[in-house]
Amino acid sequence: MNDIDVLISEVGPRDGLQSIDTIMSTEHKKEWIKAEAEAGVREIEVGSFVPPKLLPQMADAFEVVQFAKTIPNLTVVALVPNFFGAKNAIEAGADKICLPLSVSETHSRANLRKSHNEVLEEIRKISEYIAKIDGSQKPDFEGNLSTAFGCTLEGSVSEDKVIKLGAQMMELGCDEVGLSDTTGYANPNQVKRLIRLLKKEVGEENLTSMHLHNTRGLGLANALASFEEGVTTLDSSLGGIGGCPFAPGASGNIVTEDLVFMLDAMGVETGIDIEKLLTVTEKVQSFIPNESIYGFTKDSGLPKGYEKGWGVLKS
Amino acid sequence: MNDIDVLISEVGPRDGLQSIDTIMSTEHKKEWIKAEAEAGVREIEVGSFVPPKLLPQMADAFEVVQFAKTIPNLTVVALVPNFFGAKNAIEAGADKICLPLSVSETHSRANLRKSHNEVLEEIRKISEYIAKIDGSQKPDFEGNLSTAFGCTLEGSVSEDKVIKLGAQMMELGCDEVGLSDTTGYANPNQVKRLIRLLKKEVGEENLTSMHLHNTRGLGLANALASFEEGVTTLDSSLGGIGGCPFAPGASGNIVTEDLVFMLDAMGVETGIDIEKLLTVTEKVQSFIPNESIYGFTKDSGLPKGYEKGWGVLKS
Repeated sequence: MNDIDVLISEVGPRDGLQSIDTIMSTEHKKEWIKAEAEAGVREIEVGSFVPPKLLPQMADAFEVVQFAKTIPNLTVVALVPNFFGAKNAIEAGADKICLPLSVSETHSRANLRKSHNEVLEEIRKISEYIAKIDGSQKPDFEGNLSTAFGCTLEGSVSEDKVIKLGAQMMELGCDEVGLSDTTGYANPNQVKRLIRLLKKEVGEENLTSMHLHNTRGLGLANALASFEEGVTTLDSSLGGIGGCPFAPGASGNIVTEDLVFMLDAMGVETGIDIEKLLTVTEKVQSFIPNESIYGFTKDSGLPKGYEKGWGVLKS
Repeated sequence: MNDIDVLISEVGPRDGLQSIDTIMSTEHKKEWIKAEAEAGVREIEVGSFVPPKLLPQMADAFEVVQFAKTIPNLTVVALVPNFFGAKNAIEAGADKICLPLSVSETHSRANLRKSHNEVLEEIRKISEYIAKIDGSQKPDFEGNLSTAFGCTLEGSVSEDKVIKLGAQMMELGCDEVGLSDTTGYANPNQVKRLIRLLKKEVGEENLTSMHLHNTRGLGLANALASFEEGVTTLDSSLGGIGGCPFAPGASGNIVTEDLVFMLDAMGVETGIDIEKLLTVTEKVQSFIPNESIYGFTKDSGLPKGYEKGWGVLKS
């Protein structure tokens, strides 16, 4: 990523699609992923290797990873909840696997039905498995600290716990850690503070990515705060797919189009063609006509005479 | 404002109500203003002194200013388009009058039907008039640079022009200048850059306020950028009233509730009780049941166990 400043990691096909009732067909998923990669998106989380009984929307994860791997210049990410999922994701060919560990143990038990120790044990097993894989086939392994900014069940979570779990994941063999504001509780000061604290513990180079939600409208402000703290990978979802239906305006993940518009207008290179990206939104909307697609930039369009780096006005 | 860090200037009763079709009754406007002041809001732009033929929503501006003046600890602001409006606003008792000068002259002619020179002449007349008023009755006079970040008619605007017009307004007797992103074109880098440039020209202490819109979802990110540049007054509209109906999610002014939540969560003192503020939203919605009221925080509620300064998690 020498030629870009920020890597946008599209999570819509995973975090978005797993949150809506409609099951998108495998062919439509492939078209979406291909079109977004063609618009310049270089990393896409394409699916989750969870039991199809739990998330039928993700039943075709293996096939989708295999397809995505045929697209040039695309890092294919898969979410895995455990060792079994990781093995499958690696067999499918994922470039990167991402395992969430909920800092709120209550949430961990409710969501993954596992205690912290049980999740850490899965991480250990995955690391050992990866260690035996040949160099070129070896996937990156990210441990993701979810509910790191607060939990809908526990309320605030201890930042000491965030740091400690982050350190443990690195010790057990993760290549990097990421922070997730799963609940949309974070604010810019908290984001900056936690990034600094965790970097101090795990090393600057091992915390590069943030997964932010827009539940209380602070998603882009938190993304800006993350960028100001040196974060270079930001997760987002095209059309804010997966946003909570009771809160119009994309209360789930931050909206990819709005995030790209903000960075692009600031003159921050993402490698993405914003106009092309907006055509992908239309395509995806046509695949799921009964689901809401959000986005301020999509609704209002680009500014008149818009160009990248708009921030520096001509005299 | 020694005991607060940021002054929230509520503009809903002016910028919000002038943008919707429903004409709110004078009694309801009074109830709204009173309730919001009771929630801790210390500055409210209560109306615009424009000809009632042009904006019937603002026909009761004189009476509303007079009422608002009876509320303790409230700075009552009125928008004025010209000398005639300013005289009326001052007679009604406004603490502060605010005159917009559109940096895009095309927009100025379309909106105020005046060239830059004609608007500057109004500013000169108002300053002369104010200079003759006795000390305690003398209102503050802010010159506001609208379309400062781009214009829907002209596209990008010259930053040299922004600076030059800001300097001219100060020379002609304004007490301070403000920057408005009327069109929702601004991005955080542009915001920071323009604030720095204008402060350099007019003096740090004479640029303290920003009026931001959320048209492309960047409102709070731009507010954060403004705060980081030392801006201490931020305009916003309760419930995002006046947001463009084609873009759900408050594409007009930034939403007061979301802005207050962000600052409050960051531990930035606004003097506002966020829970009380959210009850004002419900009240105002009941006054205009057929209009859309926006807000992420309103829809999702405060985080579990939320408290001010949430940014610093307990161990």
